[in-house]
Amino acid sequence: MSQIPFANVAERRDQPPMLAVSTVIFALRDDERSGRKSLWLPLVRRTREPFRGQWALPGGPLGPRDSLVDAAAANLLDTTGLIPRYLEQLYAFGDLDRSPTRRVVSIVYWALVREDDAPHTDTPATSVLLDDPNVAWFRADDESVLANLAFDHRQIIEYALWRLRNKVEYGSIAHRLLGERFTLAQVREVYEAVLNKSLDPANFRRQLRAATDLEETDEFLSGGKHRPPRLYRYTGSTSHPLESENIS
Amino acid sequence: MSQIPFANVAERRDQPPMLAVSTVIFALRDDERSGRKSLWLPLVRRTREPFRGQWALPGGPLGPRDSLVDAAAANLLDTTGLIPRYLEQLYAFGDLDRSPTRRVVSIVYWALVREDDAPHTDTPATSVLLDDPNVAWFRADDESVLANLAFDHRQIIEYALWRLRNKVEYGSIAHRLLGERFTLAQVREVYEAVLNKSLDPANFRRQLRAATDLEETDEFLSGGKHRPPRLYRYTGSTSHPLESENIS
Repeated sequence: MSQIPFANVAERRDQPPMLAVSTVIFALRDDERSGRKSLWLPLVRRTREPFRGQWALPGGPLGPRDSLVDAAAANLLDTTGLIPRYLEQLYAFGDLDRSPTRRVVSIVYWALVREDDAPHTDTPATSVLLDDPNVAWFRADDESVLANLAFDHRQIIEYALWRLRNKVEYGSIAHRLLGERFTLAQVREVYEAVLNKSLDPANFRRQLRAATDLEETDEFLSGGKHRPPRLYRYTGSTSHPLESENIS
Repeated sequence: MSQIPFANVAERRDQPPMLAVSTVIFALRDDERSGRKSLWLPLVRRTREPFRGQWALPGGPLGPRDSLVDAAAANLLDTTGLIPRYLEQLYAFGDLDRSPTRRVVSIVYWALVREDDAPHTDTPATSVLLDDPNVAWFRADDESVLANLAFDHRQIIEYALWRLRNKVEYGSIAHRLLGERFTLAQVREVYEAVLNKSLDPANFRRQLRAATDLEETDEFLSGGKHRPPRLYRYTGSTSHPLESENIS
């Protein structure tokens, strides 16, 4: 998006707002420190001003011929190699001063990806994807990272976490993070990661069985040493088409 | 927002997307046909192309120095004389072909206003406000109006109705449409208007009393002929600050 050359602050302020699309992408990963799973997200290091060298959400200006959701999916593919199975519009952030150079309104999407979609490396905090040193995964509650993000991206991530924690249909979130079939223990791992605390397994199973949006299947998880646990599936209400845009 | 003079379709298509803000505003009003209250909303007749002469949601281009919520509030004040007490961001609509002349991305807000905020006239379908014949209130389910709206505004209104009907915290919606204190019969009227069907009063009272987000007060509605009904208040969780932007 071109700027008027030599435009001063007042002139820039009178340009039409620029429109950008960014995406918050959450995945569950094992956390060696807590022994639980936790939420991680990929960030991109900015290579130009403003905020050059700082980490930011994947995103960029909306092209004239990109739909919003296609722009969000393309950002993700370009920066992380991931094709999200599920993208939802989170919020449009449009405060006047969120970019120091010119007015930018960012329409933010968020994605929940399954664990096996999110690449792992041995050094989680600096895991390098696509041989690009400017892309890395971080814990979603890593204060040292959150404190130094570009723009208002800390506020955006914290709002996404708030939405995740306050979403009523946890079965739906488990479904998206875990896939079609999952054990009750796996759902508990999702809750523990989202809420960032340990939950009592017996109490949790009891509560979950009373929930109306999970149904037991006739299948069991195979491969373990012990009695194989039963697999469940999500039967809750589907979202409005606008709220769960499938990537073609 | 100026267009390049004589730009052909391909050139217009390569301009940066234009950003607009529109608002869906719902109010409860008596409906003489059904004897129930029903949902109404104000629309604005377009005075220029595209869609000249057709009804549309109040809205317009986002000015460089307007915040999103201020733009939504200003649209409403200018077109309907209303100052909404509550505005929430609904969704950003950005399909490539939603405007025939150039790419427009609309960030849509929605508002629930109390009955005493929404002006009444004797002829509801064409009620004229501010002496402006290009503003009128319509029933939210008036098929003859919905079928002829400008742009994708029918889809936007239907999505807003879907959100209203699927919102879990009905206590919160009643609170916003009715004010601080309300009777259980008034809450039932809100449900009936939102769901567009009659509900059994006794069953409804039983269900509502079991809900956790309503609390009885020591006050009673005054002025009626019969035993005055008790007033209740909403005690449910507050929204995230981003989700309930108060108008200053």
